[in-house]
Amino acid sequence: MDLLTELANLLGAGQVLTGQDAAPYLTDWRGRYTGAALAVVRPGTADEVAGVVRLCRRHGAPIVPQGGNTGLAGGATPDAEGRAVVVSTRRLDRLRALDTDDDTITVEAGCVLQTVQDWAREAGRLFPLSLASEGSCTVGGNLATNAGGTQVLRYGNARELALGLEVVTADGDIWDGLRGLRKDNTGYDLRDLYIGSEGTLGIITAATLRLYPLPVAQCTALVALPSLESAVALLGLARAGFGAALTGFEVMSHASLDVVTRAFPDQKLPLGPTPWYALLEVSDSESAAHAQERFHGVLQQALEQGLAQDAAVAASLAQSRALWHLRESISAAQSWEGKNIKHDISVPASRIPAFVAATDALLQAAIPGVRHVTFGHLGDGNLHYNVSRPPAIAAADFLLRQDEVYRLVHDSVHAHGGSISAEHGIGQLKRGELARYKSPVALSLMRRIKQALDPDGLMNPGKILP
Amino acid sequence: MDLLTELANLLGAGQVLTGQDAAPYLTDWRGRYTGAALAVVRPGTADEVAGVVRLCRRHGAPIVPQGGNTGLAGGATPDAEGRAVVVSTRRLDRLRALDTDDDTITVEAGCVLQTVQDWAREAGRLFPLSLASEGSCTVGGNLATNAGGTQVLRYGNARELALGLEVVTADGDIWDGLRGLRKDNTGYDLRDLYIGSEGTLGIITAATLRLYPLPVAQCTALVALPSLESAVALLGLARAGFGAALTGFEVMSHASLDVVTRAFPDQKLPLGPTPWYALLEVSDSESAAHAQERFHGVLQQALEQGLAQDAAVAASLAQSRALWHLRESISAAQSWEGKNIKHDISVPASRIPAFVAATDALLQAAIPGVRHVTFGHLGDGNLHYNVSRPPAIAAADFLLRQDEVYRLVHDSVHAHGGSISAEHGIGQLKRGELARYKSPVALSLMRRIKQALDPDGLMNPGKILP
Repeated sequence: MDLLTELANLLGAGQVLTGQDAAPYLTDWRGRYTGAALAVVRPGTADEVAGVVRLCRRHGAPIVPQGGNTGLAGGATPDAEGRAVVVSTRRLDRLRALDTDDDTITVEAGCVLQTVQDWAREAGRLFPLSLASEGSCTVGGNLATNAGGTQVLRYGNARELALGLEVVTADGDIWDGLRGLRKDNTGYDLRDLYIGSEGTLGIITAATLRLYPLPVAQCTALVALPSLESAVALLGLARAGFGAALTGFEVMSHASLDVVTRAFPDQKLPLGPTPWYALLEVSDSESAAHAQERFHGVLQQALEQGLAQDAAVAASLAQSRALWHLRESISAAQSWEGKNIKHDISVPASRIPAFVAATDALLQAAIPGVRHVTFGHLGDGNLHYNVSRPPAIAAADFLLRQDEVYRLVHDSVHAHGGSISAEHGIGQLKRGELARYKSPVALSLMRRIKQALDPDGLMNPGKILP
Repeated sequence: MDLLTELANLLGAGQVLTGQDAAPYLTDWRGRYTGAALAVVRPGTADEVAGVVRLCRRHGAPIVPQGGNTGLAGGATPDAEGRAVVVSTRRLDRLRALDTDDDTITVEAGCVLQTVQDWAREAGRLFPLSLASEGSCTVGGNLATNAGGTQVLRYGNARELALGLEVVTADGDIWDGLRGLRKDNTGYDLRDLYIGSEGTLGIITAATLRLYPLPVAQCTALVALPSLESAVALLGLARAGFGAALTGFEVMSHASLDVVTRAFPDQKLPLGPTPWYALLEVSDSESAAHAQERFHGVLQQALEQGLAQDAAVAASLAQSRALWHLRESISAAQSWEGKNIKHDISVPASRIPAFVAATDALLQAAIPGVRHVTFGHLGDGNLHYNVSRPPAIAAADFLLRQDEVYRLVHDSVHAHGGSISAEHGIGQLKRGELARYKSPVALSLMRRIKQALDPDGLMNPGKILP
């Protein structure tokens, strides 16, 4: 029997998509990658996922796992050959358990992140993973790429929020590692091996995640800064002053917010123009008054030390949301302006000013007039170091220089002890670059792990490993 | 040339110990395991460690890494064959870097944990890993076993505190993964694979670790509780009330503190007898007054709700230390009483009362009059569920029943969804049991990883994998 027929027998014909029905799964949301597939299948249980993997193995068909298809590195798009089966996890969307005594939630991989946040909130708990695509990305995709976002400073990446996983291995077995234990030292850390492996070792089908108490109050402020050095100094002040209450520290260049106010004229900057802005969020377990009091204490220090020039403290939830909305609109505003060249990089926070100064200068020398739209999670040393074309260069001509820009920026990241992918993963986008920046020892270890766990190389081929 | 001569040529004859000089390295500190070795070597650099590994590979000699030799599962003791080379990391004891901007410290594997804590404190920072053997255990051993301790509730296990590692692989290569990045999604998580692998995949030679701000004030209290159920309810109250300020939540049965006051008569209990005690610690980033105020608020609630019967709040650092000293003296007091049967287990915190009630009853049925010395890190669901002999049974006869007791307790842990090793690892002690409690899928994945990264099986053979 052919694979398509066997898949239809297993899942029902309605869950095996081909032709036009399959098309939305074959292009990533930014439209950068388009592939082809024998079929897109939509299993509804972990057992069905395991069955799909076993069938694909028997037929030698590559398997491409896909969550919400919101990835930024082409990790969920098949290649052009058309032999692959895309396994969409979106129908794995059940809440399996929520435990407010142990503060854990167990959800299936296809649950949308925002839905998981909502389930937690309805139970009086916080699930802190938060990122721009939270309305459509899935928890399985978040774990497969070890997603970051805006709360990493306090709560860690997706990795730190996962206590247990259920995974369909490359053999088509189910590994039931769905435990909510805070401590479990019984052998190799399989959980963290699958997290961040972008579907190249298996398919995550469910996870037990950590929940936290909901903050009693939050305080948000936009702070005007004379320089990036001041931003780093303010981060130190905020870490010391707020401790674990500091839940957000974003930085944005003037150009980043300028493009937002041009693209979305209804969004207003509450402060006058300044080279850099920081967005701070403090979460308090006591009261709004206590949060405000602490906040003003640290801001006062920052103003007195000349680190900050001015600050707008949100007086209401609506104002706080408006400040976050400025930050979260940068990517969309950049898209409105046209294609740009994005970098998701990290360097130690203390080296960020030197990195930005050096890299800006190199880019200006290479492409005079290029615009730097630099923003990101300064608290984690993670910048979205994006580059927009100079008005004098046509969009198509600018994109032709993409690889040259990648090389320049990533060489600079590497020289500053940083990472060429802070939170978006490698996918197919940065696969070639991994060979340049990872040590041969690390690459050899990774290849041997891949070979050991997926000897036929059918799990998401062409992703991560160069 | 024979291996001993080659090792002496590489390291100098003084760093290759045999005979009586080697003896202290060949028995674990509890005296449960004694092995034999061709030699104990003491390399002083990662390059020397790599050289030792390459020599041992060439001669087909097993390699047993050892840190402070304070492990509780026999993971650092060679077998009786005498072919192994024990690689002591104690001379790798340098502070490589301390960065208060990025809040990271880079230390070599042989640094004693307390020394690392001291280096951090001298720089105005906290390195929060804290456990009973901190005066002699090494950071390398802590990472190889993913050590836990008393601050896990807030700061996580050794795993969560490590940002980067330097590892000598089983091939004798050096993997330089010493990065202090908070975000780095560039391929498989090699770091977490080596952490907790107990020297069976390679030898950790250095680590970059997270630092935290020092708390401005701490508040500690011993609370008298009518039941273990009350302890779990108090934990919920404390988590909600303190948030991230809750840095310790230990529980101790009456029998646990009774053995301390009998063994060490100078240690006094500040509260009258009660079935259970909780030791709470809150770390505050504001002031001592603020810490006390919050503390009294939560305790008041607990007293009003009948969860707590009484509480002794430390009024000074000395009193706080005395309370912690009670907790930390339980193991030593048990040793003073004679051998006992220890279990380092975890179950979800909410299931702890049911687990203890069920397991106590099973043990009493099997060995009437057995004494339960139950204590541990309730905040992490981690109990040291220790069992002392009934006065009527001779010590030697009691220890003969050790395997029966292990089986009974670990079967009960497994039935309650828990782990048979929460923070001590598997070593040789629990290797056989892993086959009983790990799924065949998990064991197969682990074996394939071991085979891929250590194909000749020379790294710490006979540990972890059944």
